[in-house]
Amino acid sequence: MTGQPAAHRILLSIKGLHPQRWYELLSKGREVVLEPEGEADPTIRYAVVWKQPPGLLKRLPNLQVIFSMGAGVDHILADPELPDVPIVRVVAENLTQHMVEYVCWRVLDHHRQGITYRAQQREKIWHEPPQPPASEVAVGIMGLGELGRAAAKALRAIGFTVNGWSRRERRVEGVNGFHGEAGLTPFLNATDILVVLLPLTPATEGIIDYSVLQRLRRKGPLGGPCLINAGRGRLQKEADILRALEKGVLKEASLDVFEREPLDLQSSLWTHPRVFVTPHAAATSDPAHLAPLMLQQMEAFERGEPLKNVVDRQAGY
Amino acid sequence: MTGQPAAHRILLSIKGLHPQRWYELLSKGREVVLEPEGEADPTIRYAVVWKQPPGLLKRLPNLQVIFSMGAGVDHILADPELPDVPIVRVVAENLTQHMVEYVCWRVLDHHRQGITYRAQQREKIWHEPPQPPASEVAVGIMGLGELGRAAAKALRAIGFTVNGWSRRERRVEGVNGFHGEAGLTPFLNATDILVVLLPLTPATEGIIDYSVLQRLRRKGPLGGPCLINAGRGRLQKEADILRALEKGVLKEASLDVFEREPLDLQSSLWTHPRVFVTPHAAATSDPAHLAPLMLQQMEAFERGEPLKNVVDRQAGY
Repeated sequence: MTGQPAAHRILLSIKGLHPQRWYELLSKGREVVLEPEGEADPTIRYAVVWKQPPGLLKRLPNLQVIFSMGAGVDHILADPELPDVPIVRVVAENLTQHMVEYVCWRVLDHHRQGITYRAQQREKIWHEPPQPPASEVAVGIMGLGELGRAAAKALRAIGFTVNGWSRRERRVEGVNGFHGEAGLTPFLNATDILVVLLPLTPATEGIIDYSVLQRLRRKGPLGGPCLINAGRGRLQKEADILRALEKGVLKEASLDVFEREPLDLQSSLWTHPRVFVTPHAAATSDPAHLAPLMLQQMEAFERGEPLKNVVDRQAGY
Repeated sequence: MTGQPAAHRILLSIKGLHPQRWYELLSKGREVVLEPEGEADPTIRYAVVWKQPPGLLKRLPNLQVIFSMGAGVDHILADPELPDVPIVRVVAENLTQHMVEYVCWRVLDHHRQGITYRAQQREKIWHEPPQPPASEVAVGIMGLGELGRAAAKALRAIGFTVNGWSRRERRVEGVNGFHGEAGLTPFLNATDILVVLLPLTPATEGIIDYSVLQRLRRKGPLGGPCLINAGRGRLQKEADILRALEKGVLKEASLDVFEREPLDLQSSLWTHPRVFVTPHAAATSDPAHLAPLMLQQMEAFERGEPLKNVVDRQAGY
């Protein structure tokens, strides 16, 4: 790429992730810096971030766009001194693809009784438990953004009945739609497998609590409801999930995200026989796919085109 | 149902399966008998069978149609004295639906590294292995009948690349087609996850042997090929599968069917850490869905309409 104003540099600030690969890929398009030069570096126009240090971005006088490395932006909005420039979420086919796979995989494993069959194999038991068809099982997706809608489509193709819940009304083809506070209880009452793909905002923090789990369909064809959280860990109350599993309110859970990550070695979630743990790996941000998309957006922005996938700060996503 | 000639009775001969439910459901339409009355019972026009005793059907002078309880008919053709009347295979949405679920479930579990993640959870290891997207993984389906084509469609919707192999040429939308002896090696060479949905015939018996497994793509994105057999147990050579697992020719396997069922308690397949065993439960014949379809076919046949899903005895399916 040539002809870019040398001064329009990118600040890369990605806490806890290895920056080398991102540095290489973004450097193919523009000059990348890992730290601002001096207190008020005027050469930085863009920031690519994951959990940036609070106050870091505020000091950049010419910052024009912040790019999030993930689909969620709660890690950016946590900065109390965040400057008032547009924040662009990642929306990549690759990320969506990975999430669709993860959701279908976990839904099918609960639906087809993977936990039961693995236990039977350990005991060499040849027994076929009753198996309802997917059409009789309702998967309820909380959060109907890019990821939720793509997951709904794939689950429908496999044959599941799909319910969807979102804060504001969203119509999605083939999905039984529910929305807002008033729609939450009817949505939960009609759901056998709950898939959480909500953004983390002050309104959703801790939303997956005992009261929500208790409203899931208890007398469904799977003999009890299942929970899949592939959104954010702080959407869930882990003590409530464990209690729901013990009380027979919840049958099984697949959790990819946790209140604190990595999951504490002391957590009973690691060892619970009806909980499946993955290390926040449902849909990884693959830099080879995402970095070029960010560079393209920067170019388009400089040609005067509108930014895509800009976050609504009021809503938090 | 009324007006049926009292004499057009159904013989129900289902070895090893509990006949009560089938008896009840078929009795809603016609009189059902579990054994012929006398040597040459003239009242029986139809037989609904699963592994009937050899020679049983030959003795029925007025038998007009044989209905198989499963999608495969090898259990019927095994009778050396089988009378020359049409054999109708089961083709039911319900059966297809269950098979699609099973195939997607097992493909996703191999693709998303279920075995690795379950082992990591036992050790409380928080680690994300490299994860290729489904589009980079090729699922190869052997057998492109009703079940194979429906599975291919769902796998495509999840995002997989799909290859298909059949004895005779079959074109299926979105599937890279291979056929015949000449097409087998190119098909295997291009396949990471092999899904076996072939009928059992003299030509396919034991087809899944070491030589076939050895031709699967060894350097694919999953670090080794995987096998899923949801067809018939006698398609596979279990000693060869175990050897391929030991030699690093095969990475993992999901087996729903076995050379002898139930699987022998002495078999190493039960305890192999990279083999997933289910008890011939991928797609169960649900009598509540299948019996009415058989009764409808009998009625249509008596109105002079052609039978659907008639088996080609020469081909064996």
